[in-house]
Amino acid sequence: MTDRVPRVVPHFHEALEGLKERLLVMGGLAEERVRACLQALVERDEVQAGAVRRGDAPVNRLHVDIDQRCVALIALNQPMAADLRAIVAAVKINTDLERVGDLAVNIAEAVLRYLAQPPVPGLLDIPRMADLAQRMLRDALDAYVRRDLTLADQVLAADDSLDALKAQVHHALVAQMRAEPSIIEPALDLLLVSRHLERIGDHATNIAEDVIFMVTARDVRHSGQEDDDAAR
Amino acid sequence: MTDRVPRVVPHFHEALEGLKERLLVMGGLAEERVRACLQALVERDEVQAGAVRRGDAPVNRLHVDIDQRCVALIALNQPMAADLRAIVAAVKINTDLERVGDLAVNIAEAVLRYLAQPPVPGLLDIPRMADLAQRMLRDALDAYVRRDLTLADQVLAADDSLDALKAQVHHALVAQMRAEPSIIEPALDLLLVSRHLERIGDHATNIAEDVIFMVTARDVRHSGQEDDDAAR
Repeated sequence: MTDRVPRVVPHFHEALEGLKERLLVMGGLAEERVRACLQALVERDEVQAGAVRRGDAPVNRLHVDIDQRCVALIALNQPMAADLRAIVAAVKINTDLERVGDLAVNIAEAVLRYLAQPPVPGLLDIPRMADLAQRMLRDALDAYVRRDLTLADQVLAADDSLDALKAQVHHALVAQMRAEPSIIEPALDLLLVSRHLERIGDHATNIAEDVIFMVTARDVRHSGQEDDDAAR
Repeated sequence: MTDRVPRVVPHFHEALEGLKERLLVMGGLAEERVRACLQALVERDEVQAGAVRRGDAPVNRLHVDIDQRCVALIALNQPMAADLRAIVAAVKINTDLERVGDLAVNIAEAVLRYLAQPPVPGLLDIPRMADLAQRMLRDALDAYVRRDLTLADQVLAADDSLDALKAQVHHALVAQMRAEPSIIEPALDLLLVSRHLERIGDHATNIAEDVIFMVTARDVRHSGQEDDDAAR
C-alpha cells in the first residue's frame, strides 16, 4: 500500500459496487455447490459429493468478509436512505447465501448416505427442483444488483412451483416407502434432499423480498400472510 | 400518542434499549409459540395446534417494526463501533426470531397432520428437545441484552446436545417405521417436528454467535469449520 492510497474505504459508490460484486461471487459459489451435489446424486459420484461436503470454506470466508465490509461501509460513510437500505439488504442477503452454502453441505451428506445404500426406484422430480432452486437464487441476486422488481416478483412466483414439486416428491416417496419398507432409509435421504432444496428456494425468496424492500422501501413480507390468518 | 412524545427517535441510547426490549418481547412470543405447539402435541390438542398455526401475525408485525427501527436508528444517529455492531446484530437476530416464528407454524402443521392419524408408540425425546430449544433461545437473547459471553458460549454447547437428541429420535423413528410400515406417515411428521426443533436451536446458535461478534468484534463463525475441513 503506497502513501497515496487512502487507508479507509475509497469512493463510497465504488465500495458499494464492490460489495455487490462480492455478493454475486458468493451467490455463484453457492449455486455451483448446489449444482455439484445434484450431479453427484444423479451420477452416483461419491467423490464429488465428498468434495461438496468439505468445500464450504470459500463461501464462509466471503460471508465474514462481506459482513465486515457492510459494517465498515456504514460506519465510515454514514449513508442515508437508499444506500443504507442497500447495505442492510446486503447484510441479510449475505446471511441467506451462507445458509445456502450450509444447505449444500447438508445435501452432500444426505447424498453420501444415500449412495451407500441400495437405490430407490428413481429420483423423481428432485433434479428439476434443483434446477429451479438454482435459477431462483441466480434471479434473486440479479434482481438485487439490477434493482429489478419484475425479476424479484418472478422469484416469489417460482417458489410456489418449487413447493408444489416438493409436495409431489414427498407423496411419491412415502408411497414407495409403504410399498417397500426396506427402502425407508434411502427414501428418507431423498426426502431430506428435497426439503433442503425447498429451503434454498426459501432463501432465494427472502433475497427477492429484501430487493423489493430496498427498491421501494415497502415491506412486502407478511403482507399476504395476515390476510391468510384472517381467512382461516 | 400525545403532543409531548417526540415523533422521531428520542435519545439514542434510550432508543437502542427500546430496540433490545422489543427483541426480548419477540423472543418471548416465539418461545411461547414453540411451547404451545409441543403442549398441543403432548396433550393431543388440535384446537391449540390450530391456534399456533394461525397465530404468527404478532411476531411478523414485530419483525417489520424492529427492522424499520434498526434502519432509522442507523440513519438518524450514525452510530459508530460498538453501537453500530449492536444494531447490525439486532437486524440479524430479528431475522432469526422471525424464522423461529415460521418454524412454530411448521411444527403446528406437522402436529395437526400427526393428530389426524393413528399415534406412533411414543414421542421419544421430542418434548425434551423442545425444552432445550426454548432454553437456548431464551439464553441467547439474555446473552444479547446483557452482553454475556459466558451465556453465549453455553448456547453453542447446548446445540451439540440438541443435535445428539435429534439423531436419537431419528434412529428410533426409523426403527419403528421399519417394524410397522403403517405408521410411516405419522412417524414422518414426528421426524419433521424434531428437525424443526433442531433448526430452532440453530437459530439460537446464530444469535449467540452474533452476540460474540457484537461484544468482542471477533468473528467466531466458521472458525472451527476450517479446521474440520482440513482434518477430513
